[in-house]
Amino acid sequence: MANFQGDKQKVRAILDAVKKDGRDSLTAPEGKQICDAYGINVPKEAVVSSAKEAMSTASSMGFPVVMKIVSPDILHKTEAGGVVVGVKSADDAATAYEQIIANARKYKADAKIVGVQVQQMIKGGQETIIGAMTDGSFGKLVAFGMGGVLVEVLKDVTFRLAPATREDAASMLDGIQAAEILKGVRGAKPVNREALQDTIVRVSQLVSDFPEISEMDLNPVFASDEGAIAADVRIVLNFDQKPARFRPEEKDVVTSMKRIMQPKAVAVIGASNEAGKIGNSVMKNLINGGYKGTIYPIHPKEAEIMGIKAYKSVKDIPGEVDTAVFAIPAKLVAGALKECGEKKIAGAVLIPSGFGETGNIEGQEELQRIGREYNIRLMGPNIYGFYYTPANLCATFCTAYDVKGSTALSSQSGGIGMAIIGFSRSAKMGVSAIVGLGNKSDIDEDDLLLFFEQDDNTKVIAQHCEDLKDGRAFAEVARRVSKKKPVIVLKAGRTEMGAAAAASHTGAVAGTDKIYDDILRSAGVIRANSLRQMLELSRGVPILPTPKGENVVIITGAGGSGVLLSDACVDNGLKLIKPMPEDLDAAFRKFIPPFGAAGNPVDITGGEPPITYVNTVRLGLEDDRIHALILGYWHTIVTPPMVFARNMVQVVNEMKEKGKVKPVVASLAGDVEVEEAAQYLYENGIPAYAYSTELPVEVLGAKYKWARAAGLLK
Amino acid sequence: MANFQGDKQKVRAILDAVKKDGRDSLTAPEGKQICDAYGINVPKEAVVSSAKEAMSTASSMGFPVVMKIVSPDILHKTEAGGVVVGVKSADDAATAYEQIIANARKYKADAKIVGVQVQQMIKGGQETIIGAMTDGSFGKLVAFGMGGVLVEVLKDVTFRLAPATREDAASMLDGIQAAEILKGVRGAKPVNREALQDTIVRVSQLVSDFPEISEMDLNPVFASDEGAIAADVRIVLNFDQKPARFRPEEKDVVTSMKRIMQPKAVAVIGASNEAGKIGNSVMKNLINGGYKGTIYPIHPKEAEIMGIKAYKSVKDIPGEVDTAVFAIPAKLVAGALKECGEKKIAGAVLIPSGFGETGNIEGQEELQRIGREYNIRLMGPNIYGFYYTPANLCATFCTAYDVKGSTALSSQSGGIGMAIIGFSRSAKMGVSAIVGLGNKSDIDEDDLLLFFEQDDNTKVIAQHCEDLKDGRAFAEVARRVSKKKPVIVLKAGRTEMGAAAAASHTGAVAGTDKIYDDILRSAGVIRANSLRQMLELSRGVPILPTPKGENVVIITGAGGSGVLLSDACVDNGLKLIKPMPEDLDAAFRKFIPPFGAAGNPVDITGGEPPITYVNTVRLGLEDDRIHALILGYWHTIVTPPMVFARNMVQVVNEMKEKGKVKPVVASLAGDVEVEEAAQYLYENGIPAYAYSTELPVEVLGAKYKWARAAGLLK
Repeated sequence: MANFQGDKQKVRAILDAVKKDGRDSLTAPEGKQICDAYGINVPKEAVVSSAKEAMSTASSMGFPVVMKIVSPDILHKTEAGGVVVGVKSADDAATAYEQIIANARKYKADAKIVGVQVQQMIKGGQETIIGAMTDGSFGKLVAFGMGGVLVEVLKDVTFRLAPATREDAASMLDGIQAAEILKGVRGAKPVNREALQDTIVRVSQLVSDFPEISEMDLNPVFASDEGAIAADVRIVLNFDQKPARFRPEEKDVVTSMKRIMQPKAVAVIGASNEAGKIGNSVMKNLINGGYKGTIYPIHPKEAEIMGIKAYKSVKDIPGEVDTAVFAIPAKLVAGALKECGEKKIAGAVLIPSGFGETGNIEGQEELQRIGREYNIRLMGPNIYGFYYTPANLCATFCTAYDVKGSTALSSQSGGIGMAIIGFSRSAKMGVSAIVGLGNKSDIDEDDLLLFFEQDDNTKVIAQHCEDLKDGRAFAEVARRVSKKKPVIVLKAGRTEMGAAAAASHTGAVAGTDKIYDDILRSAGVIRANSLRQMLELSRGVPILPTPKGENVVIITGAGGSGVLLSDACVDNGLKLIKPMPEDLDAAFRKFIPPFGAAGNPVDITGGEPPITYVNTVRLGLEDDRIHALILGYWHTIVTPPMVFARNMVQVVNEMKEKGKVKPVVASLAGDVEVEEAAQYLYENGIPAYAYSTELPVEVLGAKYKWARAAGLLK
Repeated sequence: MANFQGDKQKVRAILDAVKKDGRDSLTAPEGKQICDAYGINVPKEAVVSSAKEAMSTASSMGFPVVMKIVSPDILHKTEAGGVVVGVKSADDAATAYEQIIANARKYKADAKIVGVQVQQMIKGGQETIIGAMTDGSFGKLVAFGMGGVLVEVLKDVTFRLAPATREDAASMLDGIQAAEILKGVRGAKPVNREALQDTIVRVSQLVSDFPEISEMDLNPVFASDEGAIAADVRIVLNFDQKPARFRPEEKDVVTSMKRIMQPKAVAVIGASNEAGKIGNSVMKNLINGGYKGTIYPIHPKEAEIMGIKAYKSVKDIPGEVDTAVFAIPAKLVAGALKECGEKKIAGAVLIPSGFGETGNIEGQEELQRIGREYNIRLMGPNIYGFYYTPANLCATFCTAYDVKGSTALSSQSGGIGMAIIGFSRSAKMGVSAIVGLGNKSDIDEDDLLLFFEQDDNTKVIAQHCEDLKDGRAFAEVARRVSKKKPVIVLKAGRTEMGAAAAASHTGAVAGTDKIYDDILRSAGVIRANSLRQMLELSRGVPILPTPKGENVVIITGAGGSGVLLSDACVDNGLKLIKPMPEDLDAAFRKFIPPFGAAGNPVDITGGEPPITYVNTVRLGLEDDRIHALILGYWHTIVTPPMVFARNMVQVVNEMKEKGKVKPVVASLAGDVEVEEAAQYLYENGIPAYAYSTELPVEVLGAKYKWARAAGLLK
């Protein structure tokens, strides 16, 4: 869907001519013609071939002008002495012409000189930069930033997928740190936002229409209240296009993934009776995990594995098989995979290591070829397998896991997968699935998104990844899925050091983090900052109801917690109602001691009995102007932790029955008994944390981020 | 100690004259004279009183010049049409003179006009800002930032206490986000850092020498490779000085604090036999906590409290008393406090609420007066009391606490104090002290710092505060103490919302957070971002040995953890050795499988037996080029969690005996058994966390921050 229709034929003709010339960069006039074809505003300019022509052309444009050498053989014009700025009169134009030609000859005697470009000089406005580039994972990107030191020193630049819509472009203008400058500071008029957005959209459409434009830079673009004009255009071509990563149709992905994740029958290739072997652990997990489908152990010799009839090959199995779990050495995988293909198995869960991660790229590519040939999807290799709890399916060699819930997690790394399992069990966080993606030879995060999108057992999707093999596919799917279900991503390799570690670990080349960050956020993804945060958000976000508006109220027994909770609200983008409406303030005051502070936080003070918590929380849930509550509990003899917890669950449930459903989170300050109370609250729908004011607010903040991105708060 | 000696007499004379005039702002010429007296570089200028004089003066300075009205009655010169910039010739100077005078008359007919200032115009250089202000808590501050949009839009400015040293000034130049600009970007020459530092030092000394200068702004200061020159000077005076907060001599503070924290005898005013009463809880805690000193219950009627002889008043007690714990209603406190004073008790622990926090300011001021009169130090009011574990002293109504350790914690808020107690007990974090400071009518954070500085039972000091009553005193003490012991501060009210909540809670007016942040950090304080982080750092930092250098190595079984640990290193300012020296790399490679990645992280891969962890960690501890280790453990059948943990403790202890003492932290990825392993590691000197890659690195990062600030890594 094009956001803007450019003159494609004209651009095609120019690029074809350049290709024919064997060039990979454009002359300035060619750049201008391309801009003209897409309505990108550039200064008036013309190429002249004599001092006399320079005089008349410059005079007709109006002074000052800039003059530059035009030669396909001179890329670094300034270095070659091929640029004169601030030419103020016709006579100066003539002198400049002669000088530029002389310098060019001196710089490179055999340079083909097309002429000298005379260009209108632009005065005033804010210096901005608009560019486009080609990323290995995301493909065409468009960039926007403030010019000068802001982009050079402070790296104040933002990215979106190209082509960008006008809404994307608007979000870019607001997405830089120095956004305020565009609105006019120090007496400057606000810039013409429409014009800047327009330029962003056109540039992004141009590079999308012509993939061979690998880089484009408009630097600077002068933005004023009147418009936006690109003072300099640089276009780099690459006619040598890499083939795109294969991407099956979405409906085919879902069909395969459903068979893999919810199989009627599973084959275990390399099933074993010998304890300690991976093939034995997988069998145990399938059986003890309570999987109700058919299990077919595959073994070259044994007649039975763990009391179940075994087969020599999947091809010997009488019935249909959906999923094959591999627990055999790397060198045997390709052969067995072909047999799975012939058997029309939907997916291979490739536990074995010894492929891409150990440098065996060819071995992995062989698997990919077989997978494509037989239309069998590959999970891994080099993974722990996966869990899908609604089917009691533990297709893994790790310990069985059985706490059902509605969060689907995945990890690129096995170690992180184990941490997910441990945390889930320890925190009693129910999950719908845990999936290892490992080397991602085929199935990756966007395939999982497509499955979980339609999976009614999954309400939240959380993914750990070190790279995205096809960032564009991921972003496009995530943008849709995140409107339905929160998508939480822990992108490892955020920092240069981390990215280097990721590269040595899986051979994954992690992209610049700022690009990931912008694209993921603009796709509505909630980005976790740390492993523990991903886990805590996975646990808390699904149990919170979706808020209906932005008004948050803190009700606290501990004034000190109120202060820290307020800080955490700002850190997590939450808005406290302030000032509190007078009648609401008065209503709260009725319940609290005279020296308590109403306002927001509502400080009920430390010595209060349970009824004060109950009354104020009930009021907070009842009043429709309030959309979410953050509770700060202070452990006292008058209101012990479990009394508080039970009372809170009761009042929340009572109000729920009256249709007042709002997210409530709690921070508990007190002696160790608060841990039990926090667990009780959590299990009853109120994410609660002992000894922390920030964690409950992070959970609520994530729910809000999602609700905003999904357009539920408009 | 003055960093620079200015001409004080000259400044004194000017300020005295201004005061006599009844003015609170200076004319431009007065500002220039003051700058001259302190050697602050300003443009050549003179005041002229005729068009003719304007012509000759401007000509002698060299064009262009700026001309401005000089009138004590016209503060907003531009608004009055009293400024003409870019005057380029003698004729223009004459015209400008006439115009300025005419505009001024029109703007304010009766304005007293001194003349017109002719000022040299400064060309080129980076626009910077140097200023000074007076803060309620920190007193005189000096500020530095980049001019223009960087300070206005991005708030890129940094603060230090005035007077600032040259080292302070140097740290300011490096302390802004846009620091790189000063080093020269886009072909610009680096600015003259000496000149900028010099200006900062002189401004800071000037406002320190003359407290009546409440604000001073040099904006802009043009910094070039040649020097720094202030184009505009604004000075605001306030002759109405508030008296400074009373600050006893440090040695007196320590004498009193030692008696209070390590008392030979404690009186409990309001001791009670009645369960549920605060005075009963305090008695129980003193007795059951195991306090070995003498306890004197005070009660108007009872002969004995909990089997201990009671007295009607502290004055009836035969022996000396060091500390009095108050558990009586607010209205009785003042009377009892006087008696304590007469009895020469060193400190009063004022548990009762009903003072400043409920609006009873007068009541609190009365206590302060009594305290000063009798030289009795006040803790609180409105607190839970305190714990000092080396003396088995629980002078509080909360539950008794007995896990001894070396961290001393304090909190301004009672709720946060309870969270400290709960976390400490739950995590088995030993503490030396937990102190409630509440309303801080007297004893505050710097008094505690002075006590804990000399307390051999305390190795780390962690403080929660919402404000600092005397930020300057705190910073001065912290700067010294932090060189000996890590000082961790959780400053609540960081955000505007949080500060507003703090103000309504304790009446504390929290300062701008950026000021707190800069001053605390420059005093060597480690700032915690959250409650949980303060607690985790309090737990981990004291048990880690101090690193001897910056070279950190990650050794991990889980490649995925290695990536996240690398990210965490960057986030926490840790430096991974990179590239790994060749011989060291080869030495590591000997121990790990061929497909494992050496380099840094050292990825030993997941399936390895305990000996691989042991060998690589031993090597890491042995080699003197490595200064700290971060371990990433991956739960497998081959190396179960407790086997890993015991092996790690063993190898660390083995190397310790050989004099190889280095900080080691660990991240454990695995099923729930890793929690036990983490606890075991922690208890044996290796801060370790399950399901988290960031927390162990935060702890190590904090230790490094401290070691750097204390000058131990030079």
